[in-house]
Amino acid sequence: MAGSSIGNIFKVTTWGESHGKALGVVIDGVPAGVPLCEDDIQVLLNRRKPGQSKYTTPRNEGDICEILSGVFEGKTTGTPISIVVFNKNQKSSDYSEIASYYRPGHADFTFDQKYGFRDYRGGGRSSGRETIGRVAAGAVAEKVLKELGISFLAYTKSIGPVSINTFDRDEIFENKLFMPDKEACVKASEYLDTLLSEGDSSGGIVECIIEGVPAGLGDPVFEKLDANLAKAVFSIGAVKGFEIGDGFEAAIHRGTENNDSFINENGEIKKATNHSGGILGGISDGSPIVFRAAIKPTPSVSASQNTVNKAGDEISVSIKGRHDPVIVPRAVVVVEAMAAITVLDAYLMNKSSKIENL
Amino acid sequence: MAGSSIGNIFKVTTWGESHGKALGVVIDGVPAGVPLCEDDIQVLLNRRKPGQSKYTTPRNEGDICEILSGVFEGKTTGTPISIVVFNKNQKSSDYSEIASYYRPGHADFTFDQKYGFRDYRGGGRSSGRETIGRVAAGAVAEKVLKELGISFLAYTKSIGPVSINTFDRDEIFENKLFMPDKEACVKASEYLDTLLSEGDSSGGIVECIIEGVPAGLGDPVFEKLDANLAKAVFSIGAVKGFEIGDGFEAAIHRGTENNDSFINENGEIKKATNHSGGILGGISDGSPIVFRAAIKPTPSVSASQNTVNKAGDEISVSIKGRHDPVIVPRAVVVVEAMAAITVLDAYLMNKSSKIENL
Amino acid sequence: MAGSSIGNIFKVTTWGESHGKALGVVIDGVPAGVPLCEDDIQVLLNRRKPGQSKYTTPRNEGDICEILSGVFEGKTTGTPISIVVFNKNQKSSDYSEIASYYRPGHADFTFDQKYGFRDYRGGGRSSGRETIGRVAAGAVAEKVLKELGISFLAYTKSIGPVSINTFDRDEIFENKLFMPDKEACVKASEYLDTLLSEGDSSGGIVECIIEGVPAGLGDPVFEKLDANLAKAVFSIGAVKGFEIGDGFEAAIHRGTENNDSFINENGEIKKATNHSGGILGGISDGSPIVFRAAIKPTPSVSASQNTVNKAGDEISVSIKGRHDPVIVPRAVVVVEAMAAITVLDAYLMNKSSKIENL
Amino acid sequence: MAGSSIGNIFKVTTWGESHGKALGVVIDGVPAGVPLCEDDIQVLLNRRKPGQSKYTTPRNEGDICEILSGVFEGKTTGTPISIVVFNKNQKSSDYSEIASYYRPGHADFTFDQKYGFRDYRGGGRSSGRETIGRVAAGAVAEKVLKELGISFLAYTKSIGPVSINTFDRDEIFENKLFMPDKEACVKASEYLDTLLSEGDSSGGIVECIIEGVPAGLGDPVFEKLDANLAKAVFSIGAVKGFEIGDGFEAAIHRGTENNDSFINENGEIKKATNHSGGILGGISDGSPIVFRAAIKPTPSVSASQNTVNKAGDEISVSIKGRHDPVIVPRAVVVVEAMAAITVLDAYLMNKSSKIENL
Repeated sequence: MAGSSIGNIFKVTTWGESHGKALGVVIDGVPAGVPLCEDDIQVLLNRRKPGQSKYTTPRNEGDICEILSGVFEGKTTGTPISIVVFNKNQKSSDYSEIASYYRPGHADFTFDQKYGFRDYRGGGRSSGRETIGRVAAGAVAEKVLKELGISFLAYTKSIGPVSINTFDRDEIFENKLFMPDKEACVKASEYLDTLLSEGDSSGGIVECIIEGVPAGLGDPVFEKLDANLAKAVFSIGAVKGFEIGDGFEAAIHRGTENNDSFINENGEIKKATNHSGGILGGISDGSPIVFRAAIKPTPSVSASQNTVNKAGDEISVSIKGRHDPVIVPRAVVVVEAMAAITVLDAYLMNKSSKIENL
Repeated sequence: MAGSSIGNIFKVTTWGESHGKALGVVIDGVPAGVPLCEDDIQVLLNRRKPGQSKYTTPRNEGDICEILSGVFEGKTTGTPISIVVFNKNQKSSDYSEIASYYRPGHADFTFDQKYGFRDYRGGGRSSGRETIGRVAAGAVAEKVLKELGISFLAYTKSIGPVSINTFDRDEIFENKLFMPDKEACVKASEYLDTLLSEGDSSGGIVECIIEGVPAGLGDPVFEKLDANLAKAVFSIGAVKGFEIGDGFEAAIHRGTENNDSFINENGEIKKATNHSGGILGGISDGSPIVFRAAIKPTPSVSASQNTVNKAGDEISVSIKGRHDPVIVPRAVVVVEAMAAITVLDAYLMNKSSKIENL
Repeated sequence: MAGSSIGNIFKVTTWGESHGKALGVVIDGVPAGVPLCEDDIQVLLNRRKPGQSKYTTPRNEGDICEILSGVFEGKTTGTPISIVVFNKNQKSSDYSEIASYYRPGHADFTFDQKYGFRDYRGGGRSSGRETIGRVAAGAVAEKVLKELGISFLAYTKSIGPVSINTFDRDEIFENKLFMPDKEACVKASEYLDTLLSEGDSSGGIVECIIEGVPAGLGDPVFEKLDANLAKAVFSIGAVKGFEIGDGFEAAIHRGTENNDSFINENGEIKKATNHSGGILGGISDGSPIVFRAAIKPTPSVSASQNTVNKAGDEISVSIKGRHDPVIVPRAVVVVEAMAAITVLDAYLMNKSSKIENL
Repeated sequence: MAGSSIGNIFKVTTWGESHGKALGVVIDGVPAGVPLCEDDIQVLLNRRKPGQSKYTTPRNEGDICEILSGVFEGKTTGTPISIVVFNKNQKSSDYSEIASYYRPGHADFTFDQKYGFRDYRGGGRSSGRETIGRVAAGAVAEKVLKELGISFLAYTKSIGPVSINTFDRDEIFENKLFMPDKEACVKASEYLDTLLSEGDSSGGIVECIIEGVPAGLGDPVFEKLDANLAKAVFSIGAVKGFEIGDGFEAAIHRGTENNDSFINENGEIKKATNHSGGILGGISDGSPIVFRAAIKPTPSVSASQNTVNKAGDEISVSIKGRHDPVIVPRAVVVVEAMAAITVLDAYLMNKSSKIENL
């Protein structure tokens, strides 16, 4: 319980259910004096908004955010920023059948086991709509970090068996799948069309690059920067794997392949390669931070599946309604948001690492 | 900073440097009344102890633990348990050269960037010896969880390119590599011999199975059980990847492949398969929890490497001394310990999930 | 920073400024299955609402609360409860002068020192209106604790030099000063009339009795139940002192006077007296918990005062507008709320104190 | 549970029982580069050591501290500092009788209720010896804060009915009661002699002044600096009251008396008086912080008292052994330590209050 908050100094608390009155977030520990307005947040929220392509739910919620506190005369005041998005178009009647059984791959069963009952409308608290608060908080974190020279870039690396082969940064925001490779995007779209026609869905991989992180963020033991990134990203509903730098490839590499040599680049110590993914011993090493998250296929599929109902009868079901055949593109901005939340907290925690800084 | 603690109710704080006077751990939040003695802890500590085979550092530290508080008349009292291991055989002189440059793949550089200087003896705080405290805490957690019917089994799944093909539970503790496949163990040993002769090292993968976990542990949003396992395991020095259930494979699977059907097994709701790895929506689903961690190759290799010294000169170095060509077998018990620490905390946090339990 | 949350399992986060769009609270860690509706909260909010007598600000805000999440079909779901109160009647123009100088006894100066600027409208975040979120959370905590047999009673013990001499429980909610002594209430009213006519204000003392607390809540060292009550109550704006049981009187007592004898009352171990105030060694002892908080006089007075403006000029000011000559009666419900928040968290934390309970 | 830690960035965890093998503390989050040695800590430990006068327990423990980690080449490294004091002269047999009944005023009963059993030797975890860890941590905090220009002075303000009338700073460390008034010290000593002869004990008041605190420390809502001081001081075993500035006197004062005027002192904004005790709205205002703690009389008295034994029989007991007739003088350094721990954490937390500082 009390699991809806993350962060030490920069502390984010989300609240809200898919079909409740509203969803939102309280963001505490934002340094005072940072310019902030609703547009800064809406830009990122729009990236996660459904209904942007035929591969994402057409429910048109709008998801317009309002800042209710913590900003005065266009700047953060240092007090908690409360952001709310009111739900529109709730049609609870759509979900009456779902209340009666446990959808495979969803949290219906585990919620009932934990709490004794659940808000079954649209997944309730376990809905992807909970990420609205994360993205809003991520937008605030990115705004602060931008002033400190730190920037984030997340994108789709693969959808099902289709991976990117080239990296065209400009392409990312040109296609609805957020892939930096136009050709791969076309192939992935064709793959998704096939799945749609079969009532099935696909997983994929999101990659994120963080640039401008100074060496020194993160702590040696349990609060390693990579450990906190792992937790933050793994706390996103559909994530099943996380790796940094060479990740699982490092397990089959030799030490001489995996180690990054230090070099002197115009008087600054840098690494010749970046197998580490920008973190050594849990502390940022000054290279870009690079990590990947594996996203499972959308569990809601219209193809027939076996499950049990609340009475315990084994039944066959087909999840009705229009569902994303893939959530990877919508997860991209959520992964980026969680990364920003984590890095800002580590940045603020690091201000007191040595007496010279105090 | 203040990064040496983990857990909410069951809170673990490690301390100590590789070549300081001692290393240890304070374990707070242990329920009262659990039988506990030093042998319970020593058994696990012995599994991580170096010098057990030709692939692990022959430095014979002993690593004998002492319980200094929190146990009375053979039972835990509910107050913090302080466990200490005094360091023996410290030969600081061995490390004088290392003080002068930054070892590739180690945290020397990032510590200097963060703190301005570092205890360079044997890696100081970033040494693998820090895990002594983790393993001691894991032993305590496993003792408590055993009374609640929850057990842990971790083992080596692969070393470099050599993976297990069979699973023989009894074999795990029969071989020094903790592999459940005798044949794979032989091949892995040969591979390590080659690396040793070349002054190189290997990574690998550790897998862990947790059995007996009731449905309901973990929380829906940031405190998901898998997110906390990810953090706990990623906080171990050499981990570069973490995945649960089908993990990265899920990214290429279809929804109909990845979903686990619910079934009625003699009146109890179970899953027909376990692609989820025992966790749905961040909450344990009653199936065994299965996860893997990718471990990078030991960064200390005797082969020649390029780096810079503290003066900024680019130099070529060969790390002296005898170093493990692989740390995977020693990491096995550490992974298990971090899993136990995480599951116990989730178990205790879950006591207040519903009013009927209060 | 990040100072807007309190509690470990039962975690409360308030947000909002006096003259922002809204104020509110997110309450996480509420056990599932507790009946809850807006009326449960409004009852307590009405007790802190201004404009109830001539001694409290007549600004008629309404302060109508809305539950936005965490309740489904009339019961708590175990997920965060978000409660909001929208601000009405904001007349920011009233506060333009106040922006220019530092009001004595207020937080204007310290906010500017900490954050570089402040939302000066009505005290911004340091306004008493922030307690709306606390009272809403306290109402939820009391609802849960009522199911566990624990109840709270707070009242005005003294206003300025006028203290209660009798204790009539029924009288408390009959008079606007929440005093359990009708005669003292009359005297206190006369005293306040005098202060009003002189443009001055008064402090006072709030007392709180908590009944039905089982022995065992609270922890031995830093998380003592009385230490957490002290923090919770001291976090209310105007509190300058806190004491439990005999409190400061204990400092002049002898050990034989101050110790409470244990007795056997029909097979149950009780205390013959309650000098301890219901807590021994930081842990509840089964007797009623009794504590007091000293509230300072309202700093906003219309009498002339010396201060400096933002330019540093020494000036003389008279705080305009109608201000409460005493905030003690409005603080009563806030003290009660903070007590409830603290006791519920201690109750939930105590579920894992011994292995028999797990 | 898990109640043995305090602080956010500067985090202190104590462990150990009165008659266990050792007691100690782990201090995490100490900025790197601060000169520190065992003598820095021993000086403060000696001030709390028993056996210094006829009014304090003559048990000669020595209480010699050892630093086991976190310091290298005479400076803090930024990693956790583990400090241990080994117990000497444990004569557990002395405590066999005490195991059988509940001492009035002690935590024997509440520990049994909470944990099911207790380490009865010398009070176990609830012993005053637990404060060894606090004082060691306070010494480290004071060392860091001294570099930042912040200093602490605590002393005995009253013992039973005998209060100080003058304030002679030099006198404090000249007399065994740590009173800044020689004459009051003589009277208090006579009073204690009388109590000793009657087998009784006395309470008293400790006052603490913190100088050099810049304006801006502490946070507006729950993490108010005074709220955290209240908690920290109230977490010391025998404390029954806490007040800041005018404290309980403020409750009978008028607003015009209690408000402190701001003045311009050579271009710096100061307060003409300090009724606030150095904190406004939870944030330090630049004036000295002044607070007081009420300490209850030592519960162990040799005079006869009524209680019950574990079988539930009502019995009459006389606590044997030599006990301090007053613990106030020994509490002085503990109060100072808790203040230092609190202020350092607030100082470090405040580094990120505004974007200009980042």
